[in-house]
Amino acid sequence: MDFKKEFEQRKEEINEILNKYLPRKEGLQRTVIDAMHYSVLSGGKRIRAILMLESYRLFGGKGEIIEPFLAAMEMIQSYSLVHDDLPALDNDEYRRGIKSTHAEYGEAMGILAGDALLNYAFELAAGAFEISCDERTARALQILGKKAGIFGMIGGQVVDVESEGKEIPFETLQFIHRNKCGALIEAAMMIGAVLAGASDAEVSKMEQIGADVGLAFQIRDDILDVTSSAEVLGKPIGSDEKNEKVTYVSFIGLEKAEEEVEKLSEHAVSTLVELPGKNDFLKKLILFMIHRKK
Amino acid sequence: MDFKKEFEQRKEEINEILNKYLPRKEGLQRTVIDAMHYSVLSGGKRIRAILMLESYRLFGGKGEIIEPFLAAMEMIQSYSLVHDDLPALDNDEYRRGIKSTHAEYGEAMGILAGDALLNYAFELAAGAFEISCDERTARALQILGKKAGIFGMIGGQVVDVESEGKEIPFETLQFIHRNKCGALIEAAMMIGAVLAGASDAEVSKMEQIGADVGLAFQIRDDILDVTSSAEVLGKPIGSDEKNEKVTYVSFIGLEKAEEEVEKLSEHAVSTLVELPGKNDFLKKLILFMIHRKK
Repeated sequence: MDFKKEFEQRKEEINEILNKYLPRKEGLQRTVIDAMHYSVLSGGKRIRAILMLESYRLFGGKGEIIEPFLAAMEMIQSYSLVHDDLPALDNDEYRRGIKSTHAEYGEAMGILAGDALLNYAFELAAGAFEISCDERTARALQILGKKAGIFGMIGGQVVDVESEGKEIPFETLQFIHRNKCGALIEAAMMIGAVLAGASDAEVSKMEQIGADVGLAFQIRDDILDVTSSAEVLGKPIGSDEKNEKVTYVSFIGLEKAEEEVEKLSEHAVSTLVELPGKNDFLKKLILFMIHRKK
Repeated sequence: MDFKKEFEQRKEEINEILNKYLPRKEGLQRTVIDAMHYSVLSGGKRIRAILMLESYRLFGGKGEIIEPFLAAMEMIQSYSLVHDDLPALDNDEYRRGIKSTHAEYGEAMGILAGDALLNYAFELAAGAFEISCDERTARALQILGKKAGIFGMIGGQVVDVESEGKEIPFETLQFIHRNKCGALIEAAMMIGAVLAGASDAEVSKMEQIGADVGLAFQIRDDILDVTSSAEVLGKPIGSDEKNEKVTYVSFIGLEKAEEEVEKLSEHAVSTLVELPGKNDFLKKLILFMIHRKK
């Protein structure tokens, strides 16, 4: 089967799990539940959840313990976009061609829907202890919490917000890229491995692969903003320069940025193939994320 | 010892735990950590944490497993205030006489600090599995998640926001009171009991007491807004009427509202004294919360 078909199949799998785990549209608080559905189900490639699922499979994981964590991961990703889009942050009225959550439901509900999704993600992870109350579940929860918070995604987001329109050192840009986008990718790969019973050393390797992939993914973003076209990308190119945003390309140039992506890509794949399990799709997915054209 | 002194002692205990569990002020993401400290440590009576601690003691709880949950409870309470104060919600520039978090750190950081506190609360609860990886910890986490989310505090907040300036049925007001404020009080009492090893039936009774106390606490709020003075209350009275806010008093009148508080109070205390353990301070605290003058 070709990669695209395999990918769509996984995406469908994740969407079914999300539909299963989202709260039912009922009760006096129904508006916020509607807004949660709207935020989570209005598109998205589900890359983080698919990475988690395939990391689980790489280590021979079977069973439903992964499901609440897959749903939780996508809910955290969703909430971060909902809050990112708010007027006080990126002020984006549209996302993926439709109105962003606060534009559709009002700003107050946008804030509350984001809060609700973040909280619900942890409710789902807490529910996983009903399936299996053991150290693996606890470890998975700890990773989710850490990588989503101030020592992960939120940390990256805060530094990104503070760096806007400022000259920042290269290390700060690396911190933003590694945390804002990379941390959840690391978490996805680690949680899949942990829940399948991987050893600590193996989980560390998955974290390293996640870090390589997350950073390469972001550098690719920086590159595409310069080299792609608006038609292919589906959004205006050159926006980083226009917004005076420092990027890997503005720091080290296009050629060196491409080299960096190659280096990270090789490192990620060589670490992956050294692991005992085998998952060709995961390898293809990683290469797709890094070498994508849009 | 008199109640006030005992209360201050507990508050000090909680403040020490908060200082211990808050993240260190360091790293590139330091601003958000500063804002977290600012939000959590700028006052607050710590009633929810104290209720949790005393419920734990009621059932003979000893040991540090309660600590991360005490800290998590206050962080969730703090984040809810930080987000409540945002311009899109209550638009309050001041809280407890000092600038609210978004007024001090900017709106973007207010949103992110709230997110960070909510996330960090669950990180701390997840860390509790390092102390004791068992079903009690899992149950405590589940209660925290549920009562803080759409089936608890956020649910109440959403309905409150949607009810502004509208005529709502009495049932909707009850829903708001029970969830927006009551849910965390229920959670506090349940988690203390669960972590101390109370039976399911006992935990249910604690939930009932929490529900009574939470509702009575809110009705008292409605009453004080009519009967107190600005000097005593430290904020303008009559604000509910001015804001066309329906309250227990506007629905059933002052006398019936007082009766309702009495009924809830008696029910809470009689349920409490039927429980096997004994905790005089907890009883005094409950009565204080319900019969307070400000």
